[in-house]
Amino acid sequence: MSDELQNRPVRQFLDELASGAPTPGGGSVAALTGALAAGLLTMVCDLTIGKKAYAAFEDEARVIRARAEALRAELQSFLQADVEVFGGLMAAYKLPKATEAEASARNAEIQIATRSATEVPLRTARAAAALLPLCEPLARRGSRNAVSDVGVAAQLIRAAVPSALLNVDINLPALEDTAFVEQARAQAAELTGGLDQRVGEVLAIVRERIAG
Amino acid sequence: MSDELQNRPVRQFLDELASGAPTPGGGSVAALTGALAAGLLTMVCDLTIGKKAYAAFEDEARVIRARAEALRAELQSFLQADVEVFGGLMAAYKLPKATEAEASARNAEIQIATRSATEVPLRTARAAAALLPLCEPLARRGSRNAVSDVGVAAQLIRAAVPSALLNVDINLPALEDTAFVEQARAQAAELTGGLDQRVGEVLAIVRERIAG
Repeated sequence: MSDELQNRPVRQFLDELASGAPTPGGGSVAALTGALAAGLLTMVCDLTIGKKAYAAFEDEARVIRARAEALRAELQSFLQADVEVFGGLMAAYKLPKATEAEASARNAEIQIATRSATEVPLRTARAAAALLPLCEPLARRGSRNAVSDVGVAAQLIRAAVPSALLNVDINLPALEDTAFVEQARAQAAELTGGLDQRVGEVLAIVRERIAG
Repeated sequence: MSDELQNRPVRQFLDELASGAPTPGGGSVAALTGALAAGLLTMVCDLTIGKKAYAAFEDEARVIRARAEALRAELQSFLQADVEVFGGLMAAYKLPKATEAEASARNAEIQIATRSATEVPLRTARAAAALLPLCEPLARRGSRNAVSDVGVAAQLIRAAVPSALLNVDINLPALEDTAFVEQARAQAAELTGGLDQRVGEVLAIVRERIAG
């Protein structure tokens, strides 16, 4: 689809982001931030694999690379998905509500659309968080020349997860399905718990290798 | 220049980032992260300006918008500048060093190129940090519908500043100009000092407005 966000030149993506149009917005940016982190991790794997100095780490680097690329594909798909679920939500709010039947049908549509608009950033947060366990071994044993890029990836993960979850939080008050709301809140808490600390550990390894 | 990184489709930018080519790398990603934050802040201004409910904040929102756009332009230029200074650095390292005169000329070039490769991420960090004071008034008084986007921008700023500075740190050990190195370290310390706390304050305002 030529209309996909991913096909826009970076400059145009930024211009559209900065415009008063509601999409792309924070949800797509969170997904892009995660995809940038994944891309950096893959790059570090590629600068590690095939180098004599890192031969003992090569098999593990290949596994990390495959995982990073799978998560990058997922995160890139959420870039567009976020725009689509937001469009669905706007469309639901525009449905007629003149009669009681219309109002009831409209509310049902809003519930469905809000749930979708919550699930996409939740999945974004989950995919971005899944990148974090890849950072520590890469920071410790990957190419030293690219270790700062692992640090950048870790910083981006720390930004992408709570950014995506802000887009969950903003939708939850509109949802009537309390079981879903509680589940979403529990997942959000699980994804952010210990995030800062684990990112800090990766950064400490990065700084140690830059220094030494 | 059609070869500019910014003219690449987002998808291609991510593919090139993920490739084993050393650029684009963490420096360009730090600049892009800052530009994404700036774009979100401009978007929130555009969703605020012209709305009756935010009329009292409109003049300030216009000032914030102009500042965000100026910083976005600067950050977008660093996306490409980072690739160019890295290219200059690689070229300097490839200079001949067979004779003493060659080795001395090569070292002089390396010093110049490393300094440039340090200045670009330092300016990136400074521009990204300059976005932070724009967040608090926007979070507090900008459109409530877009307040989560201010939160995302704040998270991105917190990622962009130290990410850019990692690209400063990795270059400093090669520099012989100790006065420049000390100055760079002092600037880096100034840019990161209190960053987490100030981002936390913005996020607290964002969460308060989402909840209430």
